[in-house]
Amino acid sequence: MRVCGVATDLALEAHDALRAQTGREIPGVVVERREFQNGKVTTVNITTEQGAQAMGKPPGTYITIEAPALRVTDPEAHTAIVRELAEALKGMIRVSEQGNILVVGLGNWNATPDALGPRVANHTFVTRHVYHFAPEHIPEGTRVVSALSPGVLGITGIETAEIIKGVVEHVRPELVICIDALAAGSVERIASSIQLCDRGINPGSGIGGQRQGLTEETLGVKVISIGVPTVVHAAFIARDAIVKLYEIHGRTPPQTAEMEGIIQQLLEPFGGQLMVTPKEIDNLIKNCARIIAGGLSVALHPGIIPERFADYLQ
Amino acid sequence: MRVCGVATDLALEAHDALRAQTGREIPGVVVERREFQNGKVTTVNITTEQGAQAMGKPPGTYITIEAPALRVTDPEAHTAIVRELAEALKGMIRVSEQGNILVVGLGNWNATPDALGPRVANHTFVTRHVYHFAPEHIPEGTRVVSALSPGVLGITGIETAEIIKGVVEHVRPELVICIDALAAGSVERIASSIQLCDRGINPGSGIGGQRQGLTEETLGVKVISIGVPTVVHAAFIARDAIVKLYEIHGRTPPQTAEMEGIIQQLLEPFGGQLMVTPKEIDNLIKNCARIIAGGLSVALHPGIIPERFADYLQ
Amino acid sequence: MRVCGVATDLALEAHDALRAQTGREIPGVVVERREFQNGKVTTVNITTEQGAQAMGKPPGTYITIEAPALRVTDPEAHTAIVRELAEALKGMIRVSEQGNILVVGLGNWNATPDALGPRVANHTFVTRHVYHFAPEHIPEGTRVVSALSPGVLGITGIETAEIIKGVVEHVRPELVICIDALAAGSVERIASSIQLCDRGINPGSGIGGQRQGLTEETLGVKVISIGVPTVVHAAFIARDAIVKLYEIHGRTPPQTAEMEGIIQQLLEPFGGQLMVTPKEIDNLIKNCARIIAGGLSVALHPGIIPERFADYLQ
Amino acid sequence: MRVCGVATDLALEAHDALRAQTGREIPGVVVERREFQNGKVTTVNITTEQGAQAMGKPPGTYITIEAPALRVTDPEAHTAIVRELAEALKGMIRVSEQGNILVVGLGNWNATPDALGPRVANHTFVTRHVYHFAPEHIPEGTRVVSALSPGVLGITGIETAEIIKGVVEHVRPELVICIDALAAGSVERIASSIQLCDRGINPGSGIGGQRQGLTEETLGVKVISIGVPTVVHAAFIARDAIVKLYEIHGRTPPQTAEMEGIIQQLLEPFGGQLMVTPKEIDNLIKNCARIIAGGLSVALHPGIIPERFADYLQ
Repeated sequence: MRVCGVATDLALEAHDALRAQTGREIPGVVVERREFQNGKVTTVNITTEQGAQAMGKPPGTYITIEAPALRVTDPEAHTAIVRELAEALKGMIRVSEQGNILVVGLGNWNATPDALGPRVANHTFVTRHVYHFAPEHIPEGTRVVSALSPGVLGITGIETAEIIKGVVEHVRPELVICIDALAAGSVERIASSIQLCDRGINPGSGIGGQRQGLTEETLGVKVISIGVPTVVHAAFIARDAIVKLYEIHGRTPPQTAEMEGIIQQLLEPFGGQLMVTPKEIDNLIKNCARIIAGGLSVALHPGIIPERFADYLQ
Repeated sequence: MRVCGVATDLALEAHDALRAQTGREIPGVVVERREFQNGKVTTVNITTEQGAQAMGKPPGTYITIEAPALRVTDPEAHTAIVRELAEALKGMIRVSEQGNILVVGLGNWNATPDALGPRVANHTFVTRHVYHFAPEHIPEGTRVVSALSPGVLGITGIETAEIIKGVVEHVRPELVICIDALAAGSVERIASSIQLCDRGINPGSGIGGQRQGLTEETLGVKVISIGVPTVVHAAFIARDAIVKLYEIHGRTPPQTAEMEGIIQQLLEPFGGQLMVTPKEIDNLIKNCARIIAGGLSVALHPGIIPERFADYLQ
Repeated sequence: MRVCGVATDLALEAHDALRAQTGREIPGVVVERREFQNGKVTTVNITTEQGAQAMGKPPGTYITIEAPALRVTDPEAHTAIVRELAEALKGMIRVSEQGNILVVGLGNWNATPDALGPRVANHTFVTRHVYHFAPEHIPEGTRVVSALSPGVLGITGIETAEIIKGVVEHVRPELVICIDALAAGSVERIASSIQLCDRGINPGSGIGGQRQGLTEETLGVKVISIGVPTVVHAAFIARDAIVKLYEIHGRTPPQTAEMEGIIQQLLEPFGGQLMVTPKEIDNLIKNCARIIAGGLSVALHPGIIPERFADYLQ
Repeated sequence: MRVCGVATDLALEAHDALRAQTGREIPGVVVERREFQNGKVTTVNITTEQGAQAMGKPPGTYITIEAPALRVTDPEAHTAIVRELAEALKGMIRVSEQGNILVVGLGNWNATPDALGPRVANHTFVTRHVYHFAPEHIPEGTRVVSALSPGVLGITGIETAEIIKGVVEHVRPELVICIDALAAGSVERIASSIQLCDRGINPGSGIGGQRQGLTEETLGVKVISIGVPTVVHAAFIARDAIVKLYEIHGRTPPQTAEMEGIIQQLLEPFGGQLMVTPKEIDNLIKNCARIIAGGLSVALHPGIIPERFADYLQ
C-alpha cells in the first residue's frame, strides 16, 4: 500500500491544487478531461522538466478514472468502467502482439484494505504457461500473460522489489503492470477512482519513503502502475476536522507544526500507522479487484470484450 | 463488530469516567483491580439497579485484561495472558463437567479488522462430535465444545441472532460464549485489552443499535461475551484532535452539536461508517485470536494447561 | 460430500443400469432425454411406488445435465449450461414472486474436493437483508435470497442438519436449495455433470449412511438438491480395474465378497475413506461453483439473464 | 507436488526393495536405523557413484522420519517429531550463525492435498526483514530466515524454478529449504512420514518429469528438501489390487504392459492425473504443516525449543 500525501501521488489532485493556488495554467503540464456515461477520465501529461518540477512528479502520463459506481453492485456501470480502463491501458501499452506481460499484485493479502493487488493477480487470466508448454491449446485472441503476488516484507522477510527484480530477470516480460492499494488524502476518494501511471511506482513517493521504486530504471522494462485509494491516513482526518472548524469560525488554522504535534501525539500508539477505512471495505476491494482484472483482460487479450470481462475472472 | 461508544461497552472506561466526574464511589458498583506479570485485571461488578442506571449497563460482571503484549510476538507473555483469561472465564462459567458449550465467532471473515470472532472459532478445539459419534475416542480432560461462525448480514442475508437462536435450540448448550471485535473510544486501546462480560451482548449497546442482543433473555441459556477492540470510529479521532487543540489553547471546545456537524460532514461519504485501524491489523488479529482460543481451551478443557495452549489451536 | 454408490444417487445411472439389465422399460419411471448445444439433459421421473422400489429412490424428479465443458474455460459454453440449469431449476421451483429462498452450501471449505457447496454459497447474490432492512434499495428483478455454509462435523462439532433445521425455523424460507459435492461411480463423471433433485438429500443414500436427510419431511419446507461429482471412491477404481482385466481375459470376475476383501485390505489405512480426484480439482471446483451460482441467480432473480451470470457472482 | 514412483523418490523404499531383491547389502549405500519414542528414523547414505547407480539416485543423505502420530491430534508426540526433525535438519545444515536461509513452500495453495508447502511457508517465523530494517528489534536466539510460496504454473503462468532462481539471486541465501507434498507408492505412507534430502529436488525424479530441478547445481546454493506423501497415484491402487488378487490365487499377475493398458484406459479422462487422498486431508495437511514449520523453527533458531514450537507458528 502506497501513501498518497496531500496531492502527491494523485497527479490530478496535485494539478488541481497547484492550478487553484497559482490561478493559471502550469507550463509543461497538459490536462485533458472528458466524461463517459459513468464518470470522468482525466489525463495529466507532464511533458517537460519544468512541469515535473512544478508538479513534484517525473514526466509521464497520469490517468484518473473517477467513477462512484465502483462502490456499488451495478454490472452495467462496471462494464463501462472496464471499457474505459482498458482503453486507457491500451493507450499506454506498446508491446508487440506476442508481447509477454507480467502482472504484479502488490500488498498484503492478509489485511483487507491492502489486499487489492493480490486479489487482482488472483483474478488475472494467465496464459504464459500454455504458450510455453501446450502451444496447441493457446486460447485464440490472447497475449502472453503471467501474474504474481510477491507478498509483503512482514510475511516473506524479503523486499518486494527484490522478488520482482528476480522474477523479471527470468520471465523477461516486455511490460510489467503493478497493482496496488493507495492511501488517499480525503475520504471521498476511497474506492471512487482508478489511477494509471506509465512511470511505474516511484521511490520516495508517499509517506513511507524507504520503499524501492518499481520503474523502468530499476526493472529494465516498462512499468505501468494501477491503483485505487482504499484508505486515508488517520492524520488527515484529524487535520481536516481542525481546518474545517477554523474555517467555519473564520479563523486561520494553527501553524502546521503545532497541529502536526497534536495529531502525532493522538495517533502515537502505532507509530502513526493508522488508517481510516470504510466498514464495507471487503465489498469495495471485491468490486475494484474485479474491475481492474477485467480491464487488464480486455486491454491485454484482443479476444475479450468488455461485456464479457466477468467471464474471464479467475 | 460492536461499537463501544464513549465509555459504553467498556465498563472499565464507563466507571473511570463516572468516578472522575463525580469524585466519589458509585453506589452499587464494586471495582477490584489487580496486576499480573504482564498487565492488569479489573473487575467491575454492577450489583444493584442503581449501579446499573448510573453505569448505563445491566447488572453483571465485567472483566478487562489489559496487556500490551497482545501486540507483540512474545510467547511467555501470551501464555500469561491465556492463564489470566482462562481464570477469568472459569470464574464466570457455571457448567457441569459434562456441560455442552457453544463458541460463536461473530463478525465478518472477509474484513480483517472484523475477523476476530471467526478466527477464534476456527482455532477452537471442538469435541462435541467425538462425544456424539465416537465416544471411545473422547480425548481425556475435555468438555463438550462446538463452534460456529454465523457470518454477517451482508454475506448471508440473515440476522446473526436468528442463526444463533436456531442453532442453540438444536444444540442445546448450557453456555454460549460469543467472541467479537469491538470498536473502542481511543487508539491506544486497540489490541491492548480483552474484555469479558457475563451478560452476553446487549441490544442497543454501541452506535449501530438495531442489532439484536445475544443474552440469556434472547437465547435461553447463559451467554458470556469476549471482545477485543480492533478499531476506533474515525469520528472519535477527529473529535479528540479538536478537543486537544482547544485544551492546549486553554479554550473550551465548540459545542458538541457544532463539532458533530463538522465531523459528520467530513466523514459523510460512507454514512460515517469509517473505522481507524492500524496498518498491522493482520498481526494483531492473529495474536488476539490465538490467545482467546487458548484461553477458551484452558478454561473449558481441564486437561489443557496454559503452557501448551498453542498446541491445541486448530 | 455425499457418496453415490454404484448407480444409487445418480438416478440416471440407476435407470440405465436397470434398463440394460431387464431389457425393458421400468414401470413407474418416465425418462426424457434431449440435447442442447453443449450437452444433454436427462429427466428421470419416478411416478409410482413401484417405480420407486425398482429404482431404490423415492418418487420425484431427477435431472442430470451432462456437459463436458464444465471442465474447461469456455464462457460461451458456461453460459449455455447456466441457461439449462436455470431452466431446470425454474421447472422445480414453485415459490411466489415474494418467495424467500435459502441456499445451503454443504461440505468442507478446507478440503478442495468437498468445497463446492461453500463456494456456491460464497458466490450467491443474497438480497434478503436488503428486503428486511433497506427496502428502498431492493434491486429490481430480484427475489428474497439468503445463503449459508453450515460447515462440517469436524469443524463445528455440530451435525449439519441440526444447524440447517435451526436456521430454517427462524428464516422460514419457502424453499431450501442444497448444494453438495458428490462421489460418483466412475472417473469420467467427475466434473462432467450437474444433478438436480426435487426431493432434497435423503438419509441413508450413499455409503456414509448415518447422515441425516435434508428433505421436506425433516425441514418442513421443499428442498431441492444440486450436486456435482468431484471424487470417486478409491474402492471403485480398484474394483473396475479387476473387472476389466477379467473381461479382457474372457473370465468372470471373482466373487464380490472376495474382491471386496482384497480392496478393503488395500485401502484399510484410512478406514477406506480414500477418494480419487483429479490433480486440477481446484479449477474444476471453481468452474462448477461459478456455473451453479450462476444458474441460481438466473433461476431465482427474474432480472438476471444467463449472458450476465458472471456479473452477479459475489 | 512431486511424484515418488515405485521406490524412486523414497530412498528408504528404494533401498528396502533392492535389498530384498538382491538378498545382500548394496555397495556404496550405508543405512542406519534407530527408533525414538514415537517412531523410526532411517538414514540412507549414498556414498559412491556405484551406490548412486544401484539406487537410481544421486549421492547424498536421505532421512525418513516415520511417525504415525502425524495423523492424530497428539501434542506430546508432535513435540517429539519436531525434535527429531530439527535434529535431522541440524545435521544437514552447514550455515554460519549469521547464515541467511530461504524457506520455499512449493505446491498449489488452492488444492488441499498439494498445499503443504505454502502452509509451511505461511507458518514460518521470518526474521530477515527485522535484521535488515530494525536490527534493534532482532529477537534473541534467531537466525536470518525468509519464506516464499512461488505458486504453481497454473496460477502464475511461470515455472516455479524460474521464480526461485530469481529470488535466490537477489536474497543470496546460504541455504534454501524446499517443502513439498509428495505422491507415495502406497496408501499407508500418506501423512505417516517426513522425508529430508540434502540434495534438493532433482529433475526427472517422479512421474511428471519435465519439472526443473531445485538443486545446488541450478540454484548455486545448497538445497535441502522436506516432503510428506499426501497422495497416491490412482494407478497404483488399481495395480496393487490386481497384483494382490493374483497373489491370492497363486498366479502371476499379467504382464506389466497389459496391466498398464487397462489402468490407463480406466483413468484416461484426466490424462491419468488422478490422485487418491484421504477424506480428512485437511487435518493431515494441518498437522504436517505445523510440525514441519516447528522443526524449521527449532533447527534454524537456537532460541526456540521443541516444547514451544507451536508458540512460534505464524
